Amino acid sequence: MSQRRLKVALLQHACSDEPAVNRKHIEALVREAAGNGAQLILLQELHNSRYFCQHEDSHLFDLAEPIPGPSTEWLAALAGELGCVIVGSLFEKRAPGIYHNTAVVLDSDGSLAGRYRKMHIPDDPGYYEKFYFTPGDLGFEPIDTSVGRLGVLVCWDQWFPEGARLMSLAGAELLLYPTAIGWDSRDTQDEQQRQLQAWQLSQRAHAVHNGLPVLSCNRTGLEPDPSGASPGAHFWGHSFVCGPQGELLAEAGEDAGILYAEISLERAEQVRRIWPYLRDRRIDAYAEILKRFRD
Amino acid sequence: MSQRRLKVALLQHACSDEPAVNRKHIEALVREAAGNGAQLILLQELHNSRYFCQHEDSHLFDLAEPIPGPSTEWLAALAGELGCVIVGSLFEKRAPGIYHNTAVVLDSDGSLAGRYRKMHIPDDPGYYEKFYFTPGDLGFEPIDTSVGRLGVLVCWDQWFPEGARLMSLAGAELLLYPTAIGWDSRDTQDEQQRQLQAWQLSQRAHAVHNGLPVLSCNRTGLEPDPSGASPGAHFWGHSFVCGPQGELLAEAGEDAGILYAEISLERAEQVRRIWPYLRDRRIDAYAEILKRFRD
Repeated sequence: MSQRRLKVALLQHACSDEPAVNRKHIEALVREAAGNGAQLILLQELHNSRYFCQHEDSHLFDLAEPIPGPSTEWLAALAGELGCVIVGSLFEKRAPGIYHNTAVVLDSDGSLAGRYRKMHIPDDPGYYEKFYFTPGDLGFEPIDTSVGRLGVLVCWDQWFPEGARLMSLAGAELLLYPTAIGWDSRDTQDEQQRQLQAWQLSQRAHAVHNGLPVLSCNRTGLEPDPSGASPGAHFWGHSFVCGPQGELLAEAGEDAGILYAEISLERAEQVRRIWPYLRDRRIDAYAEILKRFRD
Repeated sequence: MSQRRLKVALLQHACSDEPAVNRKHIEALVREAAGNGAQLILLQELHNSRYFCQHEDSHLFDLAEPIPGPSTEWLAALAGELGCVIVGSLFEKRAPGIYHNTAVVLDSDGSLAGRYRKMHIPDDPGYYEKFYFTPGDLGFEPIDTSVGRLGVLVCWDQWFPEGARLMSLAGAELLLYPTAIGWDSRDTQDEQQRQLQAWQLSQRAHAVHNGLPVLSCNRTGLEPDPSGASPGAHFWGHSFVCGPQGELLAEAGEDAGILYAEISLERAEQVRRIWPYLRDRRIDAYAEILKRFRD
């Protein structure tokens, strides 16, 4: 680590149904963030398109692309030109019939530092991801970059302490979640608030449990359901950055925009010295975590 | 499960250095809580005495007692008489040289339903528990009672998602934490607030990650450090009960008192239907959770 403080930027935005328009908008945001000194830029999940998993349509596999491919070339060129690390989120075409929800990390020298294929795949009304995405087969492996070792996970992963733990055990210095989560307008306001709060609680607790900062970048805006089966998805924004005690360093509302934060990579070690959870884990007694259910 | 709603009570109090005085006070609180309809009563960690782990003194092993023993007999008689389930926390003497920090569950028929020996043992300035407590060897096993299957854990366990997960995988319907945690008055106010918030975040996230209610009962009050090495421990209270989305149902401040909440044991299943994390766990990819560190 050549630097112990890091300026990060999270790009929270709405998406149009025109990928070219989205890419142009993202590029402008990336340039603005880098111009303001961001060294690490986190994009939201599947930022190049609308969230197409609201319904199941086999034509939508046409949105997928290989990695490396056009989008990694585009983001790598930006990262290299601007001298920052960019974490993007793409619909990966690996082979006919094998597609992944894949995060990519472009290093500040313009190289593809690595990829992470979403391991936990959701499937619930309006989020039909099991149709589109083959579960990841690369495991929970952090990606080394010029700004540190990044534990990149994606959306649904954010609800699973196992993924966060495996990343921290592998030396991740921060966790990053590109995500796309929203409300169902048919739920009550109380339920919507509980969901938003649970979403933050879960991820802020990963920070606490593992003693490292967490960055979560969510999309915003209302996207209609092309099938007409639902009122659409109301992505709730509220991207945030928290420190290693789960303390909020920056938090967006629902509006689109760039969320900045400065994080200390030294503080994590200080926190782990007063709260040495990794020292005390009962690895002799955890074997049944590998079971589906202990019945 | 004969009943799907449950009235619970958490007894948050200060402790004197006279165990007989503490037991008398606890008994009055238990009677009051049961009189107010509590079916499940959770006591704080090591409620019979001051928090003796502020320093290391081998004479203090005299505080330990066998299980079953005087305190389980006392609590069992209360539970049987009042027809409620009581979760207590004792200093267990198992054999000369083997002592545990053990939670006990007394069922509403006056029987000892089971015990849990604290698995994760802390050791940091003012909390010298590794001197006093042999790490638990009973694993993470819930305890069946007349009000449901209880996932009882103790204090430092609250920082470890593995313990909560193993309890929920074994069918625990709620998690309960007797605890004793406080501030060091030499820390800044900001640090103290971060610690309190992190403590709640961690446990509320166990509720979210596992889709079940969580009860956490902490002691309160300032207890001097007999060694004089520190200003003592300022136990922060703030016992709370949250539902399966981590939503707070009841929360105490620093004052001593009985915290009541009514929890629904049906809501957990409803929440798990919309957020089916247990369905999607990547048990094929978690093996390295059993490592100390992935280096």
